[in-house]
Amino acid sequence: MKKLLLVYALLIGTFMIYVYFEHFKEPAASPWDVQGLRGEMNETYVMVTFQSGMEYWRSSLKGFEDAAQALNVSVEYRGATQYDIQEQITVLEQVIARKPAGIALSAIDPYALTDTINKAIDTGIPVVLFDSGASGSKAYSFLGTNNYNAGVTAAHEMAELLNEEGEVAVITLLDQLNHQERTEGFKDALSLNYPNINIVAVEDGQGNRLFSRNKTQELIEKYPDLAGIFATEANGGVGIGEAVQLENNSGDIKIISFDTDKGTLEMIENDIISATMAQGTWNMGYWSLIFLFHLHHELTEPMVLKSRDLAPLPLYLDTGITIVTKENVENYFAQ
Amino acid sequence: MKKLLLVYALLIGTFMIYVYFEHFKEPAASPWDVQGLRGEMNETYVMVTFQSGMEYWRSSLKGFEDAAQALNVSVEYRGATQYDIQEQITVLEQVIARKPAGIALSAIDPYALTDTINKAIDTGIPVVLFDSGASGSKAYSFLGTNNYNAGVTAAHEMAELLNEEGEVAVITLLDQLNHQERTEGFKDALSLNYPNINIVAVEDGQGNRLFSRNKTQELIEKYPDLAGIFATEANGGVGIGEAVQLENNSGDIKIISFDTDKGTLEMIENDIISATMAQGTWNMGYWSLIFLFHLHHELTEPMVLKSRDLAPLPLYLDTGITIVTKENVENYFAQ
Repeated sequence: MKKLLLVYALLIGTFMIYVYFEHFKEPAASPWDVQGLRGEMNETYVMVTFQSGMEYWRSSLKGFEDAAQALNVSVEYRGATQYDIQEQITVLEQVIARKPAGIALSAIDPYALTDTINKAIDTGIPVVLFDSGASGSKAYSFLGTNNYNAGVTAAHEMAELLNEEGEVAVITLLDQLNHQERTEGFKDALSLNYPNINIVAVEDGQGNRLFSRNKTQELIEKYPDLAGIFATEANGGVGIGEAVQLENNSGDIKIISFDTDKGTLEMIENDIISATMAQGTWNMGYWSLIFLFHLHHELTEPMVLKSRDLAPLPLYLDTGITIVTKENVENYFAQ
Repeated sequence: MKKLLLVYALLIGTFMIYVYFEHFKEPAASPWDVQGLRGEMNETYVMVTFQSGMEYWRSSLKGFEDAAQALNVSVEYRGATQYDIQEQITVLEQVIARKPAGIALSAIDPYALTDTINKAIDTGIPVVLFDSGASGSKAYSFLGTNNYNAGVTAAHEMAELLNEEGEVAVITLLDQLNHQERTEGFKDALSLNYPNINIVAVEDGQGNRLFSRNKTQELIEKYPDLAGIFATEANGGVGIGEAVQLENNSGDIKIISFDTDKGTLEMIENDIISATMAQGTWNMGYWSLIFLFHLHHELTEPMVLKSRDLAPLPLYLDTGITIVTKENVENYFAQ
């Protein structure tokens, strides 16, 4: 009887010690003693976009969710439903009022949201920007595509498709910075590396399928030897594809487009568009959350932590571009 | 007696169930079911540099070690002791032969290491580059300073020091790309924003303290109104500081330097150098390991994982620049 009581006490003792060591370890001395990057499920990070129903955001949100699963934290998705600056400011203010652990924001406008972003940061809520930045704000980092480099990549792809010679046109959005940068990169890379490729026209397609189709028909008439067209956005690319089909010379004019919406991918499968530039949208979402997690848990350089005026995070993360052709297009349909 | 046996059995049962659920969970269905980013202590990542004893690497290595602690993995530090291309190739080959979980490399030369880097990647060892890249290689990412932007930052700081007017010189390394970029950024930002600041000279200081000191004395003689000098590297900065002291006009000529070695920091403390550009070296090391960990554990976009030809990681991470002045210099001594 006494022996059994002893065994009994011993077992309870062992169990208590085990539980103690598993769950009530001493608090970490340095923030990196965390033994694995792991948060709490009641720690909520919010992604905020505009035109929030758009297919384009799906992959960024997936990256954000995948990072949340990896880190054992929670995420929410909010956004202005329309392309409306005031609506996004209102949504952002509502999110701030709920004091989340961090906010990943794609800014509809580079200036209009600065005050609201700074308000969040001044009240201690970390903010990073992805896809579309707001460079004058106090946001800690920007994660997105280097658009100039994307244009350079498109130029090398075009040169390969044309065996480094021929007449080429660009259909773009002349007034938008991102599209100006894509066009510049494309033009610079061609003129620096491929003397036998000439850019005969840079036209505004207004981000519109029909308008881009008409522009392309005019270009084909004006430049009968036109060998390639670079579309800096997806609606234009589909319009160009339609024009080339209508003119019955599919395959003669090589088209390179941008992004991976369903219409573009189908035209790649049907040999109408040769290639499209896929942005690293999953990485934008994934690394936004990893960055926010580091800010929330103060897992940044010890010296920077002490001196609050210094930048704790990398300022810019280039999420890169991958070229989608008929060879790998099926991976993008699967998304 | 029977009652006690029951309690006994119950306790053992509870304990077994507890242990089972704590330690023998089902393997994760998706890579993000990991419930915290956490590796194993026998997982070893290696940092490889050149002139490996140099003070400059200390902060990058600290970031690498801090990330290892956060992720519960092991790290090692290797490097060519000299500024010797062949020695670094040999060291890198020795590291590859031991099949580490990943390699963070600062390349002594942008071309000479490409074959060795590609060999590592072809045998399944992830490689990222930090501080000095090798853009033609298969390495997954580059983490470092945007040198053009660093020059821009230095220009704005100089303009503030000079109340936006005066004669300015640059002492740089004319043949090295990083230094050309710093100089370009400095020149462009001044000419675009500050019409009353003139750059009167861009000279080669050969990365040498004495040579830069002599160059500066010549400049002061030739341009008696010289108001500011930007040094694109630290040895030059100290030499400029010495020259300005010798000419007995300390404080009249504002000096902006680069990096945070002890000599530079002391001159900031003594009001000889006004500011220096501190690179995000801790972030280079920290995020190199975080990136390598993601490659080793295949924690990248699901679609990219399927299709091995796509880039799994962000291509470039800009680790940023912070301005060190007398106000915050003590944080850098503490490092």
